[in-house]
Amino acid sequence: MKWKCIKKEYLVSNQWLKLRKDKVSLPNGTLINDYYVIEKKDVVLILALTNDNRIILKEEYRYPIDRITLELPGGTMKTDGEVPIEAAKRELLEETGYIAHEWKEFGIPFDYPTKDTNRIYLFIARNIEQMSKQSLDISENIKCHLYSLNEVKELVINGKIDVSASVAAILKFLNFSSYYLKS
Amino acid sequence: MKWKCIKKEYLVSNQWLKLRKDKVSLPNGTLINDYYVIEKKDVVLILALTNDNRIILKEEYRYPIDRITLELPGGTMKTDGEVPIEAAKRELLEETGYIAHEWKEFGIPFDYPTKDTNRIYLFIARNIEQMSKQSLDISENIKCHLYSLNEVKELVINGKIDVSASVAAILKFLNFSSYYLKS
Repeated sequence: MKWKCIKKEYLVSNQWLKLRKDKVSLPNGTLINDYYVIEKKDVVLILALTNDNRIILKEEYRYPIDRITLELPGGTMKTDGEVPIEAAKRELLEETGYIAHEWKEFGIPFDYPTKDTNRIYLFIARNIEQMSKQSLDISENIKCHLYSLNEVKELVINGKIDVSASVAAILKFLNFSSYYLKS
Repeated sequence: MKWKCIKKEYLVSNQWLKLRKDKVSLPNGTLINDYYVIEKKDVVLILALTNDNRIILKEEYRYPIDRITLELPGGTMKTDGEVPIEAAKRELLEETGYIAHEWKEFGIPFDYPTKDTNRIYLFIARNIEQMSKQSLDISENIKCHLYSLNEVKELVINGKIDVSASVAAILKFLNFSSYYLKS
């Protein structure tokens, strides 16, 4: 069932992107000379819930699609051995200025395993508290807003929230939070 | 607010992958010399519902993560002007052998707009009928199964379905199908 890698060639390999062209052998004997694999960094995504049951969403400009998206806070993990929960705490603080006293992981989906290697670590953050202002990278321009659960549901239905990992995380939370928070 | 592209350089450009390195200017004056953009093909994803309310899921081996995933049927659109609904009909027939007499689009999320350009066209397919066997590409090894709505919900909760676009599409359907199907 598994494919066998015969040769790996890195076409790009830097801090932003690692792109491989692999030569692979399939179980049925077929050879593929150029299967492209993008080794993306793992990502964390945080569903941060205020004590009055509102969710933090961020507006951020996304250059590849030349548009602002509305998403859960989050970002890529650092490659120096940062573990997911540390990355989630760091990203929440940097992007929103909030810290949370209760954390719970609730899934580790893939975005696009046809080409990409990375996973998305989903976290529920509760008992949150505004600690500081944002501290953003020079390329980041992020605005945060709080939305009630009904407003968030409406934003998913009408497609205003239209990034699949954020939609998946929000609906998993809205449907199954009692399951994840008790376990 | 928008970033300005000063220079575009294609590092890879073939039928499988288009990778750009852009030089961009940010609204605050910052210059970035190497912003990588991956021009992925748009994707269609089909939530096909049988007349007895079961959903078709496919098991497919994914080389980048060296594992089988459980996902909705779907795939990339052809670049020769195929429109989303045509791609959805083609992919459903190729991967499952089913055709559907009723189709409804229910969202066009992005997967990873930080780096990727592509969207995912989500379709609900109803009134379906098995027409033929699968007709797969030589690199595809796909098995299809039917699951009840409760089984699908359980597969999302416990992370057996762990690709974000499939999770997003399934939960959008389970929560809001009456909204999408009436509009």
